[in-house]
Amino acid sequence: MEQRVSLITLGVRDLPRARAFYEALGWKGQEVEETVFFQAGGLGLVLWGWDKLAADCGLEDTGPSGGFGGVALAHNVRSPEEVDALLTTAEQAGATITKPGATSPLGFYTGAFTDPDGHPWEVAHNPGFPLAPDGSLTIPDFGTR
Amino acid sequence: MEQRVSLITLGVRDLPRARAFYEALGWKGQEVEETVFFQAGGLGLVLWGWDKLAADCGLEDTGPSGGFGGVALAHNVRSPEEVDALLTTAEQAGATITKPGATSPLGFYTGAFTDPDGHPWEVAHNPGFPLAPDGSLTIPDFGTR
Repeated sequence: MEQRVSLITLGVRDLPRARAFYEALGWKGQEVEETVFFQAGGLGLVLWGWDKLAADCGLEDTGPSGGFGGVALAHNVRSPEEVDALLTTAEQAGATITKPGATSPLGFYTGAFTDPDGHPWEVAHNPGFPLAPDGSLTIPDFGTR
Repeated sequence: MEQRVSLITLGVRDLPRARAFYEALGWKGQEVEETVFFQAGGLGLVLWGWDKLAADCGLEDTGPSGGFGGVALAHNVRSPEEVDALLTTAEQAGATITKPGATSPLGFYTGAFTDPDGHPWEVAHNPGFPLAPDGSLTIPDFGTR
């Protein structure tokens, strides 16, 4: 298995609502067969019906718990100001701010929101994780290999 | 907001177990402060304690439901045979096969497993979503923009 992810698919309860949210953040997607595809660097972020995605994974659809589903996505930016600006944009687009921007115990600036289906996104300015001009992120060498 | 994902963090209940699983799939990670980081193309896949991740997102930790958490990751490969080979490797590494390899209604070959914490991974050979030599995936132009 190569060390990579091809797609991240988020289960959604209302596809037009979910698509409108990501488009309000500035993303451009394509909808085909009740599925929305966003090119996100070298992978695809996909919005698809919660029940269909559960069935496609061969898993029981226990429904959204309203709490934490076990996965968080992160979007790193290039300054603390960008963190606050994105949190504001997300809230205006319909997100719930679950963690306002603040300096973390590790010293970097971060906040978090959930999208309309409760999927969490952390927004962070972490100079320790360099961002290339194309937005790709490099995990630093922690010297623990 | 740029159209990209920086990190995917999976909540785990037993970090050594989770790390051993991904390393049995052939991934190489670095552990620092009870967190395991894998470079996965232009993003990082991270393993971190379920409760810590929930708290970091500002979300209630309702615990693993045992069902579907609302997110699926996908790993696309270059042949149907690679799908079956990876499902076998994953099962040997401790995964649960939730969908054996089969041709989907859309005509491509796919299967799925869950990792030891229940996070679903779809494994697919889908020639309609081209893979570059570096493994990055391109969403096709569906003509629906």
